[in-house]
Amino acid sequence: MSGENSPEKVSMIVFSGDMDKVMAAFIIANGAAAFDMKVTMFFTFWGLKAIQKGNLTGKGPMGKMLGLMNRGGVDAIGPSRLNMGGMGRWMFKKMMKKSGVASLDELRRQAREQGVRFIACEMSCNVMEIGKEDFIEGVEMGGVATFIAEASDSKFSLFI
Amino acid sequence: MSGENSPEKVSMIVFSGDMDKVMAAFIIANGAAAFDMKVTMFFTFWGLKAIQKGNLTGKGPMGKMLGLMNRGGVDAIGPSRLNMGGMGRWMFKKMMKKSGVASLDELRRQAREQGVRFIACEMSCNVMEIGKEDFIEGVEMGGVATFIAEASDSKFSLFI
Amino acid sequence: MSGENSPEKVSMIVFSGDMDKVMAAFIIANGAAAFDMKVTMFFTFWGLKAIQKGNLTGKGPMGKMLGLMNRGGVDAIGPSRLNMGGMGRWMFKKMMKKSGVASLDELRRQAREQGVRFIACEMSCNVMEIGKEDFIEGVEMGGVATFIAEASDSKFSLFI
Repeated sequence: MSGENSPEKVSMIVFSGDMDKVMAAFIIANGAAAFDMKVTMFFTFWGLKAIQKGNLTGKGPMGKMLGLMNRGGVDAIGPSRLNMGGMGRWMFKKMMKKSGVASLDELRRQAREQGVRFIACEMSCNVMEIGKEDFIEGVEMGGVATFIAEASDSKFSLFI
Repeated sequence: MSGENSPEKVSMIVFSGDMDKVMAAFIIANGAAAFDMKVTMFFTFWGLKAIQKGNLTGKGPMGKMLGLMNRGGVDAIGPSRLNMGGMGRWMFKKMMKKSGVASLDELRRQAREQGVRFIACEMSCNVMEIGKEDFIEGVEMGGVATFIAEASDSKFSLFI
Repeated sequence: MSGENSPEKVSMIVFSGDMDKVMAAFIIANGAAAFDMKVTMFFTFWGLKAIQKGNLTGKGPMGKMLGLMNRGGVDAIGPSRLNMGGMGRWMFKKMMKKSGVASLDELRRQAREQGVRFIACEMSCNVMEIGKEDFIEGVEMGGVATFIAEASDSKFSLFI
């Protein structure tokens, strides 16, 4: 469906809130954007943590529970393994720094600066009782139809 | 490979048996079907739970273990996080109801009614010693070749 | 972007190190290769375990921790569920053998023999302080740009 002169697209559903998977998502997004591809990241369920502003605490009981798991914003997200009360995260971050890998916060900022589009899943936001004001600047709200339209027009689409 | 008049396709491998991921899969399937896309869901490994009829208990020792984790059918599947002995599921379902989000069972029924194709992975069924009679009506049996043929002809494919 | 006579492509990011997901990845890769598709598997993060030579023990502290989780090579990887101190793996392997499903090691060998391309993510290797010498024969090192180029030219791409 892509027109003659329109840029090539990449789309991703970021479902996971684990630090390592979110990091992989931003690294792929930044890589594709560096090739001048138009990247759309659709954040849903636990993935909403990745675009939170500071401390993502919802208003309902589930939102409050999420908040408990979310204290400290994007850089406090633990990896999907080896977390061990924060030690895994600490070592992971230390080793990444040593290896010159950007932090989640930096990767996210790079993505924004390269024009990567961030969409928060409306349905998940309703369930978790969080809203646009809980996200960093530039996040759009959108439904699954928005993702499907983008994915149908993308060179590749990933569920992360 | 899509012909001039054939509908556009979407294909998914549903590998996970976690309630939240299965729900995401059905929501995407229903969204794509609403755009008149032809959707194929290929259920494998733990994802087979999502198309079980009542209580999916296999006949071998592994199948029996799966059965223990599966009591109560599709609506008894827990989310991948926050399950806490069923409490996470209970809260999740309560909040979804409040937000007007359909239950897993309803989402699955909608998918069937919209003509979404459900394929159970033959190899996984053999390993887990479960068969066609363990699944809801309309589930086909198929191999990885079936998935690859559909995915190669799809606008996008996801591994969930 | 595929030329007239070039083979059709499939690409996968293998992020997970869980036995069941790695197995699914190799089964899809072998299936696509059997259709004469050109398959690229890009191993990153925990997925690097799947191409380890024997015991993947990194040199830094995180690498050593990974090594502890990795004793015994590819056939010692546990499934993402039901592991229970190795019992899940043991039962899984026993049932797969009974059902005639190849072991992870055999599936990987088949993939290599069918010309599936294995790429180890350079950035992950740097973070985990592991190198080409830690992998089985034939593994290439590559960056995210390599994956994006392959995925953009693929019939379908999966994040596993």
